[in-house]
Amino acid sequence: MTNTATENTDFFRPMSWCGDYLRLLDQRLLPQETTWLTLDSVESVAEAIRVMAVRGAPAIGIAAAYGMLLAVIRYGHDLEALEQARQLLSQARPTAVNLNWALSEIWTLIESLGEEGNMEVMEERVRERALAIHEEDIQSNLRMGRLGADLIESGSGVLTHCNTGSLATGGFGTALGVIRQAFFDKRIEAIFADETRPWLQGARLTAWELRHDDIPATLICDSAAAALMQRGAIRWVIVGADRIASNGDTANKIGTYSLAVLARYHGVRFMVVAPSSTIDRTLSDGSGIPIEERPEQEVLRCLKGDAAPIGTHAWNPVFDVTPSDLIDAIVTEKGVLMKPFDSSISQLFS
Amino acid sequence: MTNTATENTDFFRPMSWCGDYLRLLDQRLLPQETTWLTLDSVESVAEAIRVMAVRGAPAIGIAAAYGMLLAVIRYGHDLEALEQARQLLSQARPTAVNLNWALSEIWTLIESLGEEGNMEVMEERVRERALAIHEEDIQSNLRMGRLGADLIESGSGVLTHCNTGSLATGGFGTALGVIRQAFFDKRIEAIFADETRPWLQGARLTAWELRHDDIPATLICDSAAAALMQRGAIRWVIVGADRIASNGDTANKIGTYSLAVLARYHGVRFMVVAPSSTIDRTLSDGSGIPIEERPEQEVLRCLKGDAAPIGTHAWNPVFDVTPSDLIDAIVTEKGVLMKPFDSSISQLFS
Repeated sequence: MTNTATENTDFFRPMSWCGDYLRLLDQRLLPQETTWLTLDSVESVAEAIRVMAVRGAPAIGIAAAYGMLLAVIRYGHDLEALEQARQLLSQARPTAVNLNWALSEIWTLIESLGEEGNMEVMEERVRERALAIHEEDIQSNLRMGRLGADLIESGSGVLTHCNTGSLATGGFGTALGVIRQAFFDKRIEAIFADETRPWLQGARLTAWELRHDDIPATLICDSAAAALMQRGAIRWVIVGADRIASNGDTANKIGTYSLAVLARYHGVRFMVVAPSSTIDRTLSDGSGIPIEERPEQEVLRCLKGDAAPIGTHAWNPVFDVTPSDLIDAIVTEKGVLMKPFDSSISQLFS
Repeated sequence: MTNTATENTDFFRPMSWCGDYLRLLDQRLLPQETTWLTLDSVESVAEAIRVMAVRGAPAIGIAAAYGMLLAVIRYGHDLEALEQARQLLSQARPTAVNLNWALSEIWTLIESLGEEGNMEVMEERVRERALAIHEEDIQSNLRMGRLGADLIESGSGVLTHCNTGSLATGGFGTALGVIRQAFFDKRIEAIFADETRPWLQGARLTAWELRHDDIPATLICDSAAAALMQRGAIRWVIVGADRIASNGDTANKIGTYSLAVLARYHGVRFMVVAPSSTIDRTLSDGSGIPIEERPEQEVLRCLKGDAAPIGTHAWNPVFDVTPSDLIDAIVTEKGVLMKPFDSSISQLFS
C-alpha cells in the first residue's frame, strides 16, 4: 500500500484567504453552479455559516477563524467589538463544537496580545493563526485518512452519510478522506453515499467531489441503507462528527444514529472520523449536545419544488446523537480511539 | 369508542368507473395539481400503472381489474387478445401481488364464461366483478381500520411510511386507514409521516390526504425516524405491504425494513396492514419476492431539479423485504395475524 503525494494533494479547496477577504465556494448552489463568494466582513462570514453557504464542522471552524481575522482587520484592538464579532460567529450554528474551538484559539491569542500591543502585530499574528488552523486541518485530515484507511479490510464496501470531504473541511476530508485514502490504497470495492435529506449533501456535494476526483460511487436514498446492509454489500459505515462528548457519544448529521443502529444489527462496523477539536470535554455524554432544528421549509420544499402541500408541518432536526456503544472506532489525527471511549478520550488529552 | 358513519365514508376516492372509461387521479402531479386521467383502453391503464400515475398495491389491483374490463369491452370473447391484455397489465409493476390477484379473479370469471357465452353477459359479469373488487377493497379497509385501531393504546404516537391511504387503495386505506380510524377513536397523540424518498409519497400524498381529512400530521425525513424513536415519540410503526410470503416476510416500499429494525431496537411495535390478497402463498419466504429497481433518475432528480451532478450513479430499489420476526402484527380484513405467522397465515386460508 503506497501513498503517493500526488494522490493526496490534488483535492478541491473550498475556501482560501486572499489578503483582505475570504474567497468561499457557495455550497448551496452545487452541483448546478460553482459560484465563489467574496466575504470581507465578520458579518458576511457569520451569514455564510448560518445559511450554510459553508457547512461541515471543520470548515465552519476555519471560516470562523477567518471571520475573526476580518474583525481584527476592521476593529483593531477594540476588544468589545471583537467580543461581539466572536459572539456573532459563535451563534451562527449551534451543534458543531469546532466553531467554538477555532474561536477560542483566536481569542486566546488576541487576549495574550492585549489591548496595548501593536495593531499590525495583532493582525499579523491572527492571520498566521487562522492560516495555521486551516493548514493544520488539512494535515489532520491526511493523517486521519491514513489511520482510518488502515482499519479497512481489502475488498470492503463502505457507506458514508452527508458530506465530510474537501467541501466540509480545509481540504481532503474526514470520513470521506478515509474513504479517499482507502480507495487510493485499493482496499475499497464499492462506495455508497446516502443522498442525505433534506439538504442532499450526499447527492449534491459528496457525489460532486468524488466525480471531481474520478472516484466511482453509487448514490442511495437514505432509507435504502438497511436493504444494502441486508444484502451484505458493506463492511463499514464511515461518518464525520459535529461534536463528540467525553464518553464518545457523537452528534452528527441527522440519520447517522439510524445508520449506527442498522450497522450494529447487521454486523457492519461503524467508524467516526473527526479531528480532536471535535471532542467537547465539557460534556460527559451526548445528552448535553444542543441539536439544531432548522426551518421546516428545508423538508417541505425539495430543491425547486414543493414536496408537500402548503400548510404541512415538518420536524427538521439537523443532527442526532449516536451513543458510543454503537461506535466501533473514533479516528482522530492523534490516533484511533477504541472502547472504552471515556478512557481512550481521556488518555488522548493527557 | 364509537365509529360514526360520516367519519368513515367521507374519504377521497382516487378512481371511479364511468360507464366506458376509468377516471383516475394522476398521483404524479400531487400536491401541485389535481388532474384526472380518462383511461379508455387496457394499454392506457397498463401505462398508468407503469409510470405510477396510480400506485399502491391495492389500487393497482383495482385499476388492473378495470383494465381487463376495458379489454373485454374492446375484444369481447377473443381469449387470445384478453390473454395479451392480462400479460400487459401483469408486467406493469413486478412486486405487488395484488395486481396478479385481481387479474386472476377476472381471468377465472372470463374462463368460466367461456368463448361460447353471450358477449353482453361477459361484459356485464366482468363489470360487476371489477366493481365488486373495488367495493370489497373499501370494505376490507374499513374492517382493517377497526381491527388495527383496536391494537393501538390510547395516547400513542405513530409513524407511517409511504402512502397507504385512499390514494393507495379503493379508498380509506390500509395502514393509513388504521391510523385514520385510531385518530377518530382519539387514541392517537401524534402522527408522523416519513417523506419517503425518492418518490416522496409521504410528503406529496399522505400529507395531502391527511390535510384533506383535517388530520394533523408532522412530516419527517426518512433518516429522522430513528431519532424520533430514540426520543420515545412513537409507540407503533404502521405500514402497508406489496407482497407477504407464507411465513409473514413482507415486501413493502424501500425503507420499511429499516423502520422494522429500528423499531425492534427501540421497543417500538411494528404493524403491517394489508388485505389478504397481498399474501402470496406460493412463496415460503421473502427471498422469492421480486424487488423492482426503477430508473436512477428518480433518485438523481428531485422534483424539478437535479439532486446530483450529471453522470452520478444511483441504486434505486423500490421495495425491501422485512423478515417476519421483526413484525408484531399483520392486520388483514379477515383478522389480525400474530406469531408464528406461518401457522396464523395457514389458518387464515384454511
